[in-house]
Amino acid sequence: MQRAAALVRLGCCPRTPGPWGRSQSSAAAEASAVLKVRPERSRRERILTLESMNPQVKAVEYAVRGPIVLKAGEIELELQRGIKKPFTEVIRANIGDAQAMGQQPITFLRQVMALCTYPNLLDSPSFPEDAKKRARRILQACGGNSLGSYSASQGVNCIREDVAAYITRRDGGVPADPDNIYLTTGASDGISTILKILVSGGGKSRTGVMIPIPQYPLYSAVISELDAIQVNYYLDEENCWALNVNELRRAVQEAKDHCDPKVLCIINPGNPTGQVQSRKCIEDVIHFAWEEKLFLMADEVYQDNVYSPDCKFYSFKKVLYEMGPEYSSNVELASFHSTSKGYMGECGYRGGYMEVINLHPEIKGQLVKLLSVRLCPPVSGQAAMDIVVNPPVPGEESFELFHREKESVLGNLAKKAKLTEDLFNQVPGIHCNPLQGAMYAFPRIFIPSKAVEAAQAHKMAPDMFYCMKLLEETGICVVPGSGFGQREGTYHFRMTILPPVEKLKTVLQKVKDFHIKFLEKYA
Amino acid sequence: MQRAAALVRLGCCPRTPGPWGRSQSSAAAEASAVLKVRPERSRRERILTLESMNPQVKAVEYAVRGPIVLKAGEIELELQRGIKKPFTEVIRANIGDAQAMGQQPITFLRQVMALCTYPNLLDSPSFPEDAKKRARRILQACGGNSLGSYSASQGVNCIREDVAAYITRRDGGVPADPDNIYLTTGASDGISTILKILVSGGGKSRTGVMIPIPQYPLYSAVISELDAIQVNYYLDEENCWALNVNELRRAVQEAKDHCDPKVLCIINPGNPTGQVQSRKCIEDVIHFAWEEKLFLMADEVYQDNVYSPDCKFYSFKKVLYEMGPEYSSNVELASFHSTSKGYMGECGYRGGYMEVINLHPEIKGQLVKLLSVRLCPPVSGQAAMDIVVNPPVPGEESFELFHREKESVLGNLAKKAKLTEDLFNQVPGIHCNPLQGAMYAFPRIFIPSKAVEAAQAHKMAPDMFYCMKLLEETGICVVPGSGFGQREGTYHFRMTILPPVEKLKTVLQKVKDFHIKFLEKYA
Repeated sequence: MQRAAALVRLGCCPRTPGPWGRSQSSAAAEASAVLKVRPERSRRERILTLESMNPQVKAVEYAVRGPIVLKAGEIELELQRGIKKPFTEVIRANIGDAQAMGQQPITFLRQVMALCTYPNLLDSPSFPEDAKKRARRILQACGGNSLGSYSASQGVNCIREDVAAYITRRDGGVPADPDNIYLTTGASDGISTILKILVSGGGKSRTGVMIPIPQYPLYSAVISELDAIQVNYYLDEENCWALNVNELRRAVQEAKDHCDPKVLCIINPGNPTGQVQSRKCIEDVIHFAWEEKLFLMADEVYQDNVYSPDCKFYSFKKVLYEMGPEYSSNVELASFHSTSKGYMGECGYRGGYMEVINLHPEIKGQLVKLLSVRLCPPVSGQAAMDIVVNPPVPGEESFELFHREKESVLGNLAKKAKLTEDLFNQVPGIHCNPLQGAMYAFPRIFIPSKAVEAAQAHKMAPDMFYCMKLLEETGICVVPGSGFGQREGTYHFRMTILPPVEKLKTVLQKVKDFHIKFLEKYA
Repeated sequence: MQRAAALVRLGCCPRTPGPWGRSQSSAAAEASAVLKVRPERSRRERILTLESMNPQVKAVEYAVRGPIVLKAGEIELELQRGIKKPFTEVIRANIGDAQAMGQQPITFLRQVMALCTYPNLLDSPSFPEDAKKRARRILQACGGNSLGSYSASQGVNCIREDVAAYITRRDGGVPADPDNIYLTTGASDGISTILKILVSGGGKSRTGVMIPIPQYPLYSAVISELDAIQVNYYLDEENCWALNVNELRRAVQEAKDHCDPKVLCIINPGNPTGQVQSRKCIEDVIHFAWEEKLFLMADEVYQDNVYSPDCKFYSFKKVLYEMGPEYSSNVELASFHSTSKGYMGECGYRGGYMEVINLHPEIKGQLVKLLSVRLCPPVSGQAAMDIVVNPPVPGEESFELFHREKESVLGNLAKKAKLTEDLFNQVPGIHCNPLQGAMYAFPRIFIPSKAVEAAQAHKMAPDMFYCMKLLEETGICVVPGSGFGQREGTYHFRMTILPPVEKLKTVLQKVKDFHIKFLEKYA
């Protein structure tokens, strides 16, 4: 009796419910009513289907980890199972994942991280004093002196201070305020958070977001998720993928017919296109944003990856300040950085920051509120970010090793950028712009009309067809240009330059051989 | 001339642009046109304002880090500046952040993490062999054997296998498939990802999401972000916050008038309410979800935090399987876990997983695609999750220490749960249900009508007014019940039980004294 009473209290009528319970009661009528419908119920449809799911999520595409990468995974499994292929390994040149390609972590960064993770090591003589000093400082700023506590939603205070100091140094003294720094879960998190706050309106007043074409597909994916309007501006392939302000004007004018363009996204150095913007071009972009009342988002995660001796990285923040107070106190700008790229390549830690200036104070509150829902970015990633912005300096014990490691990575990348450009341009039907920065080649490839027809027969974009063939015949995994966007009728692929030099040479030779064979086959 | 040509090529008309450039040209007319409008422009409004921002983000509330926590931060700063207060420190009992409250990390977990972070330590004799074995296994599954590489979007394979093995053990042999496991950035990330996929439709067919009241405010925040419809079902405070299936029926029936209820969220053990659901109640909830065609989301992050000897944690997955194939092969269920709670309290690493069963295969593809846009959860958090699900076992070198540390944390929490319940119930005008599990007390507080009037005069919810006063007078930071939801006319607050025993006693005594004084003042 007591059990039945308890069940009634919980609102659960006792009955004879077959598989879902064992209790017996007088409410048999109700139970048998339930039993009668069961055969129909047991064949019930899923609640969550392609038809019923969020259509904005369904519309999302993300080529960098899309079908080509799934195929690469299948081929790897086949190789493991001993199935014979014309190659022995899959080379994942689809994603900028340096350490997966064999790049070694920066010793100092990992030493500080290990000390933070397991503070007993602070007593160990095998760790340098400067690493211990960094670790102690980070831990002192963490709740309970532990990486295991939540941080403030905006990030650990002293790390935000270090980021601000880094930006000030980088920009030759242009001040940065720790209060404008937000640590993030990689740059992607910051970019999608800012876009999330910006998107509003319906119909013709829906927010338009201007993005470069080719773009990094995070942008199109988030725009799709948010049901915002993607406004394409095309980079000028004939001029080393330069950003042409006339093209921005064309894009914004056309967009005004069907949406409210409110955001301009810039990727500098470019991904996938590798161009580095000139100072003058940045000025013109900022002026354009000012004129058109656009919120500027500057994706500057490749700021350390500039290889061409004729190019230099200028931050949007620095140029904005140098343009005078009318700009520097008016233009809303969010700039993004990450631990994943540069010379450290710590992708797995998901560290990043954004600096957001000229934000309306009320919006600052809204941003912190939104960030607080996810509690905080990974504190280990925040610590990694700290080392990126606060590395050993001359005179410190670890400086020499750090400097050697950093220069070696960046020197190698510069060498590989040149090598890739040169080798691609030796292949008939491939044209590759200079890789001024970032980590990718985005060569244009000629695809003969017979191959275009073959692709159509397979219901594939022609460059997807090309990349699938390349993967199947050589094991090299690259991403079709259609995943990034390209001018109608042109075809490209994105390939990272991260494999070690000798391997990269082999990869490039294989692409060359494949391409020549491909042209012959579909001539 | 060359410079001008270059500028034209970049689409940047050379002109005399005052502060934004230094070039001189014949296009002076255009420049002066720009100059003329500048005074107006320089006073320009921000693009991103409370009026123009995403209204769904504006509607988000997140009490756990809301105004009371901002106030706590201000008071801390004042204390640092030497401003005298009736207390010397702020006690942040607003958030379940164990290590910030002084709980020590589990040694074994941090040893494995340190070894993964800095693999040179694998040669060190000061680390136990079982920790090295775990670290080697994790590293071998990482790209380039490094935590610094991206993992697969779903998470590192071998960690997903360990999670599946853990679930199978936990559920007494009910099978778990690694393919259904998704590693996440804390549980919050998984919960919002699943909700994001589920929400669709407009008007009366907009997705309704059933959540308990009181709830953990992540749910209401994400529902707001997604513009979904929040469907409240009330827990039964008179019956230890039990979940009453009749109340679910009421809620779903009423909701059908204005939305399409498609999801049922359960938090077990409860947050903020601390109840542990009986097996029978879980059965009834599952049957209800089956009847009403609801997607089940089971937030089970407190599965290790059960203190009442009369209670036991049953996973929804286990009960679902034991109800037979009509349920186990039909009901779509996502269950969430985290590294942040339990006995390890590793909040900062943002580790978590979800197990999603009976997902339509096409939706599985959509889910992986959506996850891939953010690349991967932090790999260090994934490694932490691995140790949580794959701890030392009897016979292993680290077992004894691990076991002692774990039992000490959980034993202390059980003691503090009882202590808190007992002490609160000694205070006139406070009633506290048993803390069967989780990490919080959610006592009901009597607020006299004069205090309600005073709160209204301050434009505050009465319990916010109460909590602000408590903070200002004692330094104790708790979260008002209105942030979690409560029945109209009732008032509560949520307080963590994480401070060390002696400190907790002081905290409880201070709350008691404050409450008595408060009742007197507003009698």
